[in-house]
Amino acid sequence: MAYKEQYPSRLLEEAVDAIGSLPGVGRRSALRLALHLLKQPQENVHHFTAAIDALRDNVRYCRNCMMISDDDICSICSDRSRDHRTICVVESVRDVMSIEKTGQYHGVYHVLGGIISPINGVGPSDLTIRQLTDRVAALMSPEAMFDSDGAPAEVILALSGDVEGETTSFYIYRQIAQSGVKVSSLARGLGFGDDLEYADELTLGRSIVNRQIFKP
Amino acid sequence: MAYKEQYPSRLLEEAVDAIGSLPGVGRRSALRLALHLLKQPQENVHHFTAAIDALRDNVRYCRNCMMISDDDICSICSDRSRDHRTICVVESVRDVMSIEKTGQYHGVYHVLGGIISPINGVGPSDLTIRQLTDRVAALMSPEAMFDSDGAPAEVILALSGDVEGETTSFYIYRQIAQSGVKVSSLARGLGFGDDLEYADELTLGRSIVNRQIFKP
Repeated sequence: MAYKEQYPSRLLEEAVDAIGSLPGVGRRSALRLALHLLKQPQENVHHFTAAIDALRDNVRYCRNCMMISDDDICSICSDRSRDHRTICVVESVRDVMSIEKTGQYHGVYHVLGGIISPINGVGPSDLTIRQLTDRVAALMSPEAMFDSDGAPAEVILALSGDVEGETTSFYIYRQIAQSGVKVSSLARGLGFGDDLEYADELTLGRSIVNRQIFKP
Repeated sequence: MAYKEQYPSRLLEEAVDAIGSLPGVGRRSALRLALHLLKQPQENVHHFTAAIDALRDNVRYCRNCMMISDDDICSICSDRSRDHRTICVVESVRDVMSIEKTGQYHGVYHVLGGIISPINGVGPSDLTIRQLTDRVAALMSPEAMFDSDGAPAEVILALSGDVEGETTSFYIYRQIAQSGVKVSSLARGLGFGDDLEYADELTLGRSIVNRQIFKP
């Protein structure tokens, strides 16, 4: 139990409790933020809280890829210039934003909404894996294959490289492999600009085993 | 202008804008916090925003010392066991909480609500200096002197040691000195446990000049 400060006001204490409940915000920072908000014009504070309430109350998720969206179908899924036969499977909304920022990916996404983690009580049914298998089945249906002139379909498993990420990747792989869809995962190896000396052994070992043809 | 990310939703972008407007919270952290709030149960988010709105809408200030308070008079000013003839002048609510935490002070406070800072457009009239001079005048009135059996009155200037703090201290000193009240300021010197080697020259120099009788 952390040392409990004496607050001069119950209202202040409740606001500090609320702000301090955010991840990564300690009570000292929470007090600083509460006193900052207290100094702002009332309408600014109302605008602040209204933006948060509006997000939580009115947020929608793309019914196709489960990405946060203002519409029924997100802007990526409704973009006809993208490759709808390549689905990149990610844990969270943030991962979609990270990959989009690279500008290197032109397919669509599937947001799992988490990762399989028995310790945290998250099982496959808590994620959007069922929706993914439905999407893959639709991609691999004879009609879709005919419509796309037999263009290949691919699922990219873009999950983190830890045990939970690997477990989730493996679980999904088992669910979709028999459909015949191509399944790939992100390249792992040294980061660009990384120094060999500081790479961990596992990463370095894998990047030797999975070495690529040198393309100058 | 910082790099502007592509947000998948206007609601998300507005919430990130709002959270990112807090001091010390960058856009990356703001996104993380917004996505965290999005995952919380709706009533928790409403509780969070309601606590902040309630603080800003219903906060009151002690009409005596200007401290944040749930009542007309704060718990310190209404504590009859405290020395009401010693007033500690501080910049902010946080300073009161810091001094209270030491458990070493048994007088009352006066919260200025800021510090004189021409650069930031803060002049004496923006602070609660007038209320302070009124309090000092009341303390030094013949009636108060009689009621307190001539017990001395003291104003402790507990402002920061930078130029703005010194300026504010000097300004207040000029406003109250002629009343005959004793005026003191916080002791400055090496911190307890500080290493001489790492002390800045000004602090070290002053702690030699203002050396104290050694009390073993």
